[in-house]
Amino acid sequence: MVNFADRMSGIKASDIRELLKVAARPEIISFAGGLPAPELFPVENMKAALDAVMDEQGRAAMQYGPTDGYLRLREQICERVAAKNNIHTDPEHVFVTAGSQQGLDFLGKLFLNPGDVVVLESPSYLGAINAFKQYQPNFVSVPTDENGMIMEELDKVLANTPNVKLIYIIPDFQNPSGRTWPRERREKFMEIINKYGVPAIEDNPYGDLRFKGEFLPSLKSMDTEGLIVYFGSFSKILTPGFRVGWIIADGKIIEKVNHIAQAAVLQTATLNMMAISKYMDMFDIDAHVATILPVYKHRCELMINTMRETFPKEAKFTDPDGGLFTWVELPEYVNTRELAPLAMEKKVAYVPGSGFYPKGDVNNGMRLNYSCATDDKIVTGIKILAEVLKGAIK
Amino acid sequence: MVNFADRMSGIKASDIRELLKVAARPEIISFAGGLPAPELFPVENMKAALDAVMDEQGRAAMQYGPTDGYLRLREQICERVAAKNNIHTDPEHVFVTAGSQQGLDFLGKLFLNPGDVVVLESPSYLGAINAFKQYQPNFVSVPTDENGMIMEELDKVLANTPNVKLIYIIPDFQNPSGRTWPRERREKFMEIINKYGVPAIEDNPYGDLRFKGEFLPSLKSMDTEGLIVYFGSFSKILTPGFRVGWIIADGKIIEKVNHIAQAAVLQTATLNMMAISKYMDMFDIDAHVATILPVYKHRCELMINTMRETFPKEAKFTDPDGGLFTWVELPEYVNTRELAPLAMEKKVAYVPGSGFYPKGDVNNGMRLNYSCATDDKIVTGIKILAEVLKGAIK
Repeated sequence: MVNFADRMSGIKASDIRELLKVAARPEIISFAGGLPAPELFPVENMKAALDAVMDEQGRAAMQYGPTDGYLRLREQICERVAAKNNIHTDPEHVFVTAGSQQGLDFLGKLFLNPGDVVVLESPSYLGAINAFKQYQPNFVSVPTDENGMIMEELDKVLANTPNVKLIYIIPDFQNPSGRTWPRERREKFMEIINKYGVPAIEDNPYGDLRFKGEFLPSLKSMDTEGLIVYFGSFSKILTPGFRVGWIIADGKIIEKVNHIAQAAVLQTATLNMMAISKYMDMFDIDAHVATILPVYKHRCELMINTMRETFPKEAKFTDPDGGLFTWVELPEYVNTRELAPLAMEKKVAYVPGSGFYPKGDVNNGMRLNYSCATDDKIVTGIKILAEVLKGAIK
Repeated sequence: MVNFADRMSGIKASDIRELLKVAARPEIISFAGGLPAPELFPVENMKAALDAVMDEQGRAAMQYGPTDGYLRLREQICERVAAKNNIHTDPEHVFVTAGSQQGLDFLGKLFLNPGDVVVLESPSYLGAINAFKQYQPNFVSVPTDENGMIMEELDKVLANTPNVKLIYIIPDFQNPSGRTWPRERREKFMEIINKYGVPAIEDNPYGDLRFKGEFLPSLKSMDTEGLIVYFGSFSKILTPGFRVGWIIADGKIIEKVNHIAQAAVLQTATLNMMAISKYMDMFDIDAHVATILPVYKHRCELMINTMRETFPKEAKFTDPDGGLFTWVELPEYVNTRELAPLAMEKKVAYVPGSGFYPKGDVNNGMRLNYSCATDDKIVTGIKILAEVLKGAIK
């Protein structure tokens, strides 16, 4: 008889991935995904980079490569995070992953015994919750406001919770909430984790996608104790289909991540690392990012303005400074999981908020993605959603 | 203070990956790796396939894709395993992984609670042992002879061992031993696992690389109870650097693998799946495999013949019918781990056998790879190794 491991009781189909299957139908206006806008992908330039790799290093690109990643790419990542995030490191402290989701799996594996505690923002990224659930931890959520995690609450949690092994946060344009931590909270966060000596994952896939407001320093750039494990990714600024992200961390953590990767997957695809590296050598990736920003800014503003005009006044939502998402909070009696099928009947899809809470017990939120819809669809879809929401308001 | 999870005590640097770093130096004659011969990679044709993908489906190739893999590729895998392995299935039962190592990680995660038993051939693939060790199982090894696993011994193990959750085997050109199970053993294996109802991973990365002897049916082609989880890969027949393999299994297992992949990695890189699919649509992959076979056959024969001429008579070794490896067994008092530095001093590298035993307690074996060395290096390297071995024989 085939018996699965105990951990499988916590490993379920992801809400988002299942919903996306339906939402992918052409007749649906989908705010459900987290897809970058494909019309902005630099297809021609990437083809040129792939051609150059195959012409100049074709045999190497098709062969096995090092577990920690293609050296030239790790050098370029160092240059980029120095320029963009004020993080000063060297290639020995950079580990290339097949996207940040794999990094979450590796860090869960590295840190979590069953019953250990992971501290999260509330709400937090569904994909991170699901990655950690594989390792059967307990989750403790820290309350947030419109400026992200409330640091006094974090301090209380760390003072009163035994066995906290890991903190997971997204300080820039959080998924799902779209919120960004101001500078003082970042400084306070570092002070608190230094006091308790707890490692934290700073997940920063959206940081370069700031379309308004001021640059804010990464937590990693303020890290004096080697406690921050920084995650970056090419998925949102270049291509998610190549599956290339990176981890920057203390040497002791990178060494263990290397051992996990050897056992779990060997390496990230050589071709993909070389192609992205070559793309950055041949072209200006910042010039490409600069083409994304006005489009996302426009779509975001159009969505927010249409929500302001049409949503019931009881709906509160984030006006994000960057990234891909806004987040709607409704009165507690509104259950967005129950509303989703009604919206889907009217051909509009969103992600119900419950998946972004580890116990799935908060039902009045919804995540809306604006990066991947045309103006028409944004206006039409938001108006339809407004009608659905009005029907649910007492 | 940073504390790692208990499982990390079993997750160590892989012998092979660490050794390969040294063995990669140009002055070393390395029989240590498991690399396909890069001079045989179809670089020009793969470049044409990549170009066609970027021209025709560039935006899709750069975007997120389905967790279970690109549909057209899964169809082609079905056609291929029907033609090559007599396995008749449909795309719903095929799951694309980023190489078979990832499949091993997923299956360990799916089946193994700490203390559960994994049954292996003795010796078995080091990468599989390390993948499973992440989930803290106990290993029980079944004795083998020159025809692979001894089925009477397997029957005894399954009759007397509680809590066996998984069997892992490589019936074709095993890594490390180069041995192949004859038909009767395959039939007997299926009879035994059906009796006990224990699932088994049939890992078959080398099956298409048969350069002599007769075709033998895959276990999966004889599987009537859905107990065989079949692993295939493009790594050894096309390119390892693209990281694309596949799992064929019962629907209940595929569903769970899908959930694990959603939590652990999202998907295999879209570009890589599309490029391999396009390559197979544009070109004849069997014609490519046909260019590999005579080269590996020649290198294998040259290595085996040189060993016959020069190795001390106490050394027993496999004369493989395909694949990448031969395996040397020395008298029990010879410790190949202690000999490795002596060989390395003389610029020859191999993988000591102990890593292929879960407890690392058998020290008289060594794995030699012939796929990736020139004639000169094979002859020179084997002669040097012969001298080292002679010095160790009492």
